[in-house]
Order: sequence, then C-alpha cells, then structure tokens
Amino acid sequence: MPKVKFSVMDRLVDVEVPEGTTLLDAASDADLHINSICGGEGICGKCKVKVEEGDVRAGSTTTLSREEIKSGYTLACQTFIQGDVKVRLPPESAAGQGKILVDEDAQRFKALTSVGVGSSVSYEPLIEKHYLDIPEPSLKDNLSDHRRIYRELRRKKDIPIMQTGLKVFKRSSSLLRENDWKITATLGRRGDTTEVIQLEGGDTSDTNYGVAVDIGTTTVVAHLVDLVSSETIDAEAKYNSQMKYGEEITRRIHHVEEEGREDLQDTIAEDINDLIYVLVDRKGVNLKDLTSIMCSGNTAMMHFLLGLEASNIRKKPYVPNTTRPPPIRAAEVGIKINPRGLLYFMPAIGGWVGGDVTSGVLSTGIHKSEKLSMLTDIGTNGEILIGNKDWMMSCAASAGPAFEGSGIRSGMRASKGAIDKVEITDDQLMYSVIGSTKPKGICGSGFIDLVASLFEGGYVNRSGKLVPENSDRIQQEDGELKIVMVESSETKGTGELAVYQSEIKNLINAKAAIYAGARILMKSLELELEDLDRLLIAGGFGSYLDREKAKTLGLIPDIPSDKVKFVGNTSIIGAKMSLLSQQAYDQSHEISESVTYYDLIDYPDYFEEFTAAKFLPHTDLSQFSSVAVKNREGD
Amino acid sequence: MPKVKFSVMDRLVDVEVPEGTTLLDAASDADLHINSICGGEGICGKCKVKVEEGDVRAGSTTTLSREEIKSGYTLACQTFIQGDVKVRLPPESAAGQGKILVDEDAQRFKALTSVGVGSSVSYEPLIEKHYLDIPEPSLKDNLSDHRRIYRELRRKKDIPIMQTGLKVFKRSSSLLRENDWKITATLGRRGDTTEVIQLEGGDTSDTNYGVAVDIGTTTVVAHLVDLVSSETIDAEAKYNSQMKYGEEITRRIHHVEEEGREDLQDTIAEDINDLIYVLVDRKGVNLKDLTSIMCSGNTAMMHFLLGLEASNIRKKPYVPNTTRPPPIRAAEVGIKINPRGLLYFMPAIGGWVGGDVTSGVLSTGIHKSEKLSMLTDIGTNGEILIGNKDWMMSCAASAGPAFEGSGIRSGMRASKGAIDKVEITDDQLMYSVIGSTKPKGICGSGFIDLVASLFEGGYVNRSGKLVPENSDRIQQEDGELKIVMVESSETKGTGELAVYQSEIKNLINAKAAIYAGARILMKSLELELEDLDRLLIAGGFGSYLDREKAKTLGLIPDIPSDKVKFVGNTSIIGAKMSLLSQQAYDQSHEISESVTYYDLIDYPDYFEEFTAAKFLPHTDLSQFSSVAVKNREGD
Repeated sequence: MPKVKFSVMDRLVDVEVPEGTTLLDAASDADLHINSICGGEGICGKCKVKVEEGDVRAGSTTTLSREEIKSGYTLACQTFIQGDVKVRLPPESAAGQGKILVDEDAQRFKALTSVGVGSSVSYEPLIEKHYLDIPEPSLKDNLSDHRRIYRELRRKKDIPIMQTGLKVFKRSSSLLRENDWKITATLGRRGDTTEVIQLEGGDTSDTNYGVAVDIGTTTVVAHLVDLVSSETIDAEAKYNSQMKYGEEITRRIHHVEEEGREDLQDTIAEDINDLIYVLVDRKGVNLKDLTSIMCSGNTAMMHFLLGLEASNIRKKPYVPNTTRPPPIRAAEVGIKINPRGLLYFMPAIGGWVGGDVTSGVLSTGIHKSEKLSMLTDIGTNGEILIGNKDWMMSCAASAGPAFEGSGIRSGMRASKGAIDKVEITDDQLMYSVIGSTKPKGICGSGFIDLVASLFEGGYVNRSGKLVPENSDRIQQEDGELKIVMVESSETKGTGELAVYQSEIKNLINAKAAIYAGARILMKSLELELEDLDRLLIAGGFGSYLDREKAKTLGLIPDIPSDKVKFVGNTSIIGAKMSLLSQQAYDQSHEISESVTYYDLIDYPDYFEEFTAAKFLPHTDLSQFSSVAVKNREGD
Repeated sequence: MPKVKFSVMDRLVDVEVPEGTTLLDAASDADLHINSICGGEGICGKCKVKVEEGDVRAGSTTTLSREEIKSGYTLACQTFIQGDVKVRLPPESAAGQGKILVDEDAQRFKALTSVGVGSSVSYEPLIEKHYLDIPEPSLKDNLSDHRRIYRELRRKKDIPIMQTGLKVFKRSSSLLRENDWKITATLGRRGDTTEVIQLEGGDTSDTNYGVAVDIGTTTVVAHLVDLVSSETIDAEAKYNSQMKYGEEITRRIHHVEEEGREDLQDTIAEDINDLIYVLVDRKGVNLKDLTSIMCSGNTAMMHFLLGLEASNIRKKPYVPNTTRPPPIRAAEVGIKINPRGLLYFMPAIGGWVGGDVTSGVLSTGIHKSEKLSMLTDIGTNGEILIGNKDWMMSCAASAGPAFEGSGIRSGMRASKGAIDKVEITDDQLMYSVIGSTKPKGICGSGFIDLVASLFEGGYVNRSGKLVPENSDRIQQEDGELKIVMVESSETKGTGELAVYQSEIKNLINAKAAIYAGARILMKSLELELEDLDRLLIAGGFGSYLDREKAKTLGLIPDIPSDKVKFVGNTSIIGAKMSLLSQQAYDQSHEISESVTYYDLIDYPDYFEEFTAAKFLPHTDLSQFSSVAVKNREGD
C-alpha cells in the first residue's frame, strides 16, 4: 500500500492507505483534520495541500490559481494517491487553525420569521427539488434516460421549456440504475425557462437551502433559508470589505477604472463566502445543499459582484450595464455554494436605485396598495420611493456610511458590544449596549440617538456644532472638539469612546442628503406631506431607530407618528420572498419595470435643498412645526 | 525594455519588446513564427510555449492541462511580458513544423452546392448575426445597455425568450461606446430560447461560418458552410481515430466501461479539430468566426463525443442516455471554434438509429412524401428506414467497416490514390484511381465493385469463395487465398495490392447484415418489394456505387433500377440543412419523434435471414429473379 507522509508545521505524520484513496481521507486516517466545508465536493477550496513528492492523480482544481497549481498545490479531496507521496499541509488548511472571519451577529439583523410569504404570494421556490419514482424502461417503453426524466417531471409539474446542461446528464444513466430509478431532480428557474441543475439518487427533496444577501455599500447581511420549510434559520452580517477601496460608490467605481474590476469583485465575493461559511458551519448545512443565492443591493454593488462595467453609472445619463442580470452559476463569480447552484439578483430600477428598493416595494406591498406611501431606505446610499399601485417614482441620495456606524472613530457594526441607544437625562449620558457587556463602540442607531440627544440637551446647536460651555464631556483634541461618551476604564479595552465634531457634521450631511432627496421628489410630484398615507422607514437598524429622534434630527419629514412605520431590512426580506416564491420574483420584475427613476444629480434645486437641510432639524422650522424644538438654545 | 530569449530546437533568438507585449507578438518581432490558427484569441491552443525563466502574466489557459501548467507551459498569445524572460518553443508550436493531420479529400465527399435549402425549408441559420445601430441613451431614454440591446434586437426580430451569459455583458458597455453604438449581435438558437452568444463592434454580419460534421463509426466528414451565403465552401474527411479502440461500436463501449470515457471523447474531438483546422486554414477563415457546429452520427458516436454513458445502449432494452442532447458550448467538449460557439447534434431516434438517419429523412423529404420509401444508409452501422409522411419505422444492422475501405489490408479512404472502380473484361482486371495517379489502395466502392466483378467473372463463387483454378491472380499466402489486383511495381510505393479471402467474407457478411435488416423490417410491416415506390441509397460513396453491382451482390433488394436512387451522404446534407434553417432543425426533431425504432437484435428470425443472405446474391435466388446471375459457375 502506498505510504503518505504529511508534514504540518513542525509535525510529521505517516500513514499507509490503499491506492486511489484521496489525500483528504488519508489525512483523516492519520488523525489529521483538514479544513473542508463542502464535504469533499471540491467546492470550498479549503483543503488545499502541497504535494512535495510522489505520484497523485488530481481532479478538479477550479478553486486553485495557476500559480498555486504550478507550485504543486492541489485540493486534498480531489487528489487520489497513486504511490508513495509527501504532502505539506499549509497552516490555513489544518482544521482549527483558520481565523474567524465574521463575528457573531446580534439578533437585530435576523428577522428570522415572517418573511411575508403566505398570504400575499404563493410558495414556489426559484430552486425546487422534485422526488421522482420513474418507471423502468422496457423494449416497449424505450425512451432515453433524458426524456424519461423529463416525462416524469412534466407529470409532476407543467414545465413548458426545460433545459439541462451536459454535466447533469453525464452521470444520470448510472445514477438512475444504481438508485433503482428513484432520484431527486433540482429545478432552477432561469428567466422563462426551467433548468434541471442537479440530479441526486434517492429522495433528497427535504434538503434544500438558499441564502439571501443584502449587499449594502457599507454592510453585507446574509440569511440562511430552509427552502423546504421556508424558514430563515440563521443570519450573519459584516462590513463590506470594499470600503478599503472607498466609502462611496463613486470612489469604488474610480478604483475599477484605474485598477480593473477584479479587486471589487473578489472582495465582495469573499465577504459573501465568509458569511456563507459561518452560516453553514453553525447550522451543519452542507455547501452542496445550498442551491441558490439571491442578492439584493444597489446597482453598483450588482455590477461589482458580477464584474460588469460600472463606469457609466457615474457619468451622465447614468446608464448601467444592466438592471436585470440573468441568473448565473454562483461559481462563475467565485461564490462557493453547490457548483451548479444559481445566483440571482433582485432587478434594479436605474443606475442609482437598485434591487434593494425593488425588494422594499415587494416586501411592503406598495405596488399593490391604494395608499400613497413613501419608502425611505436609510443606508450609505439612501433611496426614496413614493407611490402606490398605480405609479411609483424613486430617487437616491448619497449619505455616506455614518448610519451604519462606519467612518467614525468609535463606530462599529450593530453587534455585541455596540452602544445602540443613548439618552441624556439630567445631564447624565445613559446608553444601552448590545449583548449587555462593556461597550466597544457605537453603532448607527446609537449614533443617531446620540446626536439627537445632544441636540435636545443643548450640547449641539442647530448648526450641529458642539457647545463646550454646556458640558465637561466636550473637550478639544488636536484642534477638534469631541464629546466623550464612555471613559476608557468603562470600555471593553478599546480606550475612550468619543464622537468628534467632524463626525457629527457627517451625520448631519447624511440626513440632509436624504431629506433633500425626499423634498425634491415631493416637489416634483407636487405633493404635500398631508398627501402621504404612510412613511415606511427601511434600513439595517430596523425598529431600533427612535422615530421621534429621527424627526428631531430632521432625518425624516414631519408627519404624524402613526403614519410612520419601521419596516426593517426590506432589502433582505424582499430577497427571501423571491427565493421562496416565483410569483414574488415575477412581481419584482414588474416593480422594477414600473418605477420611474428620477435623477437628483441634475435637479437644479437639489444643492439648495441639501444646504437648507444641514440644520437641526432644518433651516425652515415651518417644515417641522409639529416637532417641538427641544434644543436648550431654542427653549 | 524587457528582453526575450527564445530557444527553438538548436536556435536561440533575442528580441527586446515593450512591457505588456504578448509572447506571440514578441516571437513575431523576432521573426519566429509560432503556430496560431485562432488569431491570438486563446482558442486553438497551438501557440503553446514554455516559460523557463522570468516574469510574465498569463491569461486564459483553458486549453492547457494541469501538468502542462505545472511544467511552465503557457499560451504565447495570452501571456504578457513583464520583464526579461526565457522561453522555449516546443517543435510542434513552431509554424511549418506541424505534421499534416488530414490528407486532402477527393471531390466525392463534397456535394458543395445545393444543400437542399431553398424550396423546401426557409433560410434562417441556427446562429445568426444581426447588425444593430442603436440610439444613444439620454436622461429621457436611460434604459440599461443590456435592455437597450434587447430592445433593438426585438425591433428586428420577434424573439420571445432571450438569454445572455454574463461573459457577453462584461465588455458590452465599452463595446457600445467605442463603436458609436453600432454593434453586431450573434444569436444562437437553444431549444425554444435564443441566446445572445456574442457582441462585436461594427458590422460583422457578413462573416459567419458553421461546420457540419458527419461522425461515422469509421469515417468523419466535415463541411465548412458560409452561413451568410448558405454555400458549402470546403469539405474534408478522415478516418475516425476511435478505430484503435475497436472497429465496432460495442467494442468501443466496452473500452469506455473498462477505461473511462476520456479516450473516446478526446479522440473524436481531436479528429473534428483536425478537420476544422484544415478547413479554416485552407479557406483563411478565422476560428472565432466559426460560430456553430452541427454533428450528425449514430447514437453511440453522440454519446462518445459528449462524454455520456453509452453502456446501456448495448444492454437490453438498449436505452441511450439521450437522443436529443441540448446545444452546448463546443468548448465544453474540447472542440475549438469561437469560445462561445454552439455545438448541436441532429436528434437521434433510438439507441442504434442515430441522427444520421434523421438527417437522411430530412434531406430526402420522406417525412413529407406520399410515396413509400426505403432509405438504406450503408456504413459501418447500416441503417434502414421505411416510411412516408404518415409513418416511419427503422432499424440498424452492424456491417463493419468494409464499406469504407477499412479493415482490409489494402483498404483506404476514398481519397487520392484509391481504386474506386473495378471492371473485369476478358479476364483483364481494369480499375480507375482517384486523382489519376498510381494506386495506393482500394476504397469502399472499389471493393464492392471488385467483389461483384469477381463474382460475375467466376473468380468468386456463390458462397463468396475465391476459385484459384480460374485465375493466376488468385494465390496462396500463409494458408489464405488472395487475389492480386495490382503488382507492386505499378503501385505508388505501397507494395502489391491484394484482397484476401477473409476480407471478401467480411464484405459479404456486411451486405448480408444490411439485407437481412431490410428483409425483417419489410416482413414485420407485411410489405412486399412492389409496395416500395423508392429505394434511396445513402452513404459516403454517394453515386460512386454501381447500382447493378450492388444488386448483383445482393447488397440492395431486387427492385427496378428506376426506383433506386443514390442520395449521397445524407447525414451531412441534413446537418447542413439544419445549420442553415431553423425550420429544418425543428422538422428534424419532429422526425426523430415520429420514427418508430425497431430492434433487430431481439427479432427471432434475424439470424436465419442473415445466414440466408450470406450467399451471392442470396441463398434464395427467387428474391433476385430480375438479376441475371452472372457468375460463370451459374451460366
């Protein structure tokens, strides 16, 4: 029997195994545990090893680079031992050595139940499994295996146009015969056709998962969905690593123009892979059972992940390459789920209003309602939509990452250790921390709370300036004012938590951008606030935002609180609805068709409106007549 | 500037080129000519070089194996110089060193004109190009590039379902803008949907080629078709290199079962590539302008090329994996045309009656005719079909390669130097040679002529035995009788040309198999010869077969000569019709649906009929009453 020598860091391990054993199995025999998330299917690429000497036969190496192959790297699960061999395990492949890529997320990103499927749209996932018990062929009934499978599928379901790739049929004949003509077919919706994306032996129809991803400019959120029970079983979030190429979309597009599309594409694909790994690992789901991924995000994010040209989005007339990319194999962009699993995108509306807004409409039902709604999606790219079942119009305003706890020195995502609520009572600053630990930073909703409270308490004036006379907490540092929230000794080893004058300014600019967008849209539609039946506030922080404080800041228009509703992360809710309901997916395409995209950038009054909104709550207090201006200065 | 050192065999050449130059261009600067058929598109893989030292950046390497990449091989056209570099040119990559893979074919395989398109079916190629002059976007008309292209295409043509792969859109935005919104879209038919397989700048709509391939068990024929003019512009043929894995299909299936599918798949793909290279090279066609390939052949050949499981074709109830494989990218099976070009197959009828018969019906119009026709496709796998517009039935009989000049020691393909006709007059053996040179061998039609003449002349008796008493040409060699056709001195250096007793026996077995198949089909349909309105003889040798001699041998039934028509290589004619006419392609699917497949192998009388047909012309002379038995014995 061939002998295999493994070296892993300073250890050396020998083992003898039969010829034809994979390196992954040999390592397991030697009690060496190599990372592998996909169960040896050659998908995840985690089991990379280096063959230093000896005779092996290697199968699929699609997850390895040319340089890696040249240096002798191979995937342990796809490499068969043919003789004595010496193998080196790189540290990252040894199980237990990998760094944790994504921190555990707080419940606030979850919304694990009530996806909205049920009453409004019918359950029929984009990727479905059908168990088939096929009659055996005979001389009288000698249809080919291919058509026999099609015939059986069509007995179960009306499928006008069915397509199948060659790879699926390559092993189908023995699959049928080895499994006594009992197989499970995985069907994937591709536009107006249906693709048989996979055939498996036996009945696997109760194991089918999808992942919905909200690709925000600043934050990426992923939900793991059981496509059979239609339940969301776990959720995870992280910052979008593309931020290193610029906080704003236009900066990132500029990076693409200078350096090519790979950086942005690889970065977001890796973020999504990181999130998926955490989810499947935590829930014990096999990557190959993850058959679909639905992404929702702004149009530029869609272009970045797909590697499409984004330049023209930032140039007049702001035309994207596509608003409705075709479903593709997730593997085509380096996303590691089932190798034949499909990647879908929520259809976008225009260059600056993305699939996240389509998701927002879908999940709130604006497109079916008589009521006139305004939907404000508060994120780095703030989007505003007004409409009802007869018409919809939308625009976008660049707000920057402040709402997501980014771009501020003490900022962090809304996860364990983040200050998420702030109150100032009797000059005492009180805060709550996610996970009830000592604070590590402040998240977006906490930051909004803080600034509103500072304004109410008079620590910040109407122009957003810190007023040092009113508190000892307001101090100078390197010529800039800051307000100390938490002393160093009370934090979780992160040092003093403070918020700086420039950061408060950024938040005010962000709210001004969104408010100005909403105003322009209202004006151009000749609408008054009274005409609105509902104001729906969407965004990652969901109901953790205080509506009174949002009004105090002038982030949202001054309309009666009973008309204001927080609808949470509608981007991901809409994505999940579409994953679970072909009807919802079809509706999302109708929505993206019927919304008129309104471009603010060329609207002559925009800059004026923006400037006027850079006060708290606004230069024109008559717009906020119902809001008692609580600022101590204003008393 | 970086310096490049090329070593080719014992030569060393230096050249300095700017950074970013490809190795292919650098070689050209150094007056070294590297093979390249695709024009530097990374398709053909002919420009393989080995980077021995230095700094390069390599693009696509899909045509290289893992082992080649590990050893430093790269494609010269896809490799960019980043610094000084040392490169070795393997001899096969140096232009002018490659061996000629395919010999020039005789006119007999061509049938260059009159594909049959025109009167019977409408011209509309499976792959079409459309030139688009697209209105520029504006703020008022700001559809995405993707939908703008679709809108324009739909103005030209009614396309209900359109699909596009991600790769096509990756460069479309700059393509549109760099070409002033004037582009050419290549549309490919995929089942009931249409795929945009390529976008090119400017108007390239007059440059679009396809190749039709008849994949025979013994011979592979390829025709190069100009899809714009619908003319066949060149043709080429070679033996099927799979013969090394067995002359008969069942032997090849056995090889697959023992050794895997790669050998058979790679062999036929390489044969097809060889034929394509000769055609495009001779006609100066760029591989990237070759957008489609239509294959026609028996069901097993289809399985071999696609790498599908063929085992069940040879096991009762003889069920193939598929009879109608979906169109795929030709590159998926290693066929090198445009990387996004599509590979189609003529739909097959059953496990042993392939797309070649569907082609035969399509091109002869049996499916539309009131007349009752019998179609006999004479090849290694002989196929017989009887029917008219109301019904069709067919079966297959394994004949072996004798009809194609293979499996006989002096045999060769019907190309230059082949004896293609033989007459015996006054004991003198006369022959004609293709290309009017000295003979190198005998081809299928020549061999049939020879045996018929030998029988007529009394040199062979009714049981097919050589009669040595009747000619000095009949001699013993190693215990076997042979008849010398051409003395060594009169040949083109190939030594004596003789035909052996066992080879004559093989031909008689072959004709007996086909004749018995036809008889069984007639009997099971309760038809008499008089009922047939037409006997259509298809096969590579086309009209080069002498119908009287075919009857003398008992290869075809004894029906009046005016009912017998040679229809040539209908397999390739039907393939070309389908390439050029979507209507024809659709009809081919209807044909493959409507033909009933009749399996001879389990028919109880087959062996008896076969044995009875192993005489010349037949044991039962009453079946050949109109044929004067010309054998001297029978005088």
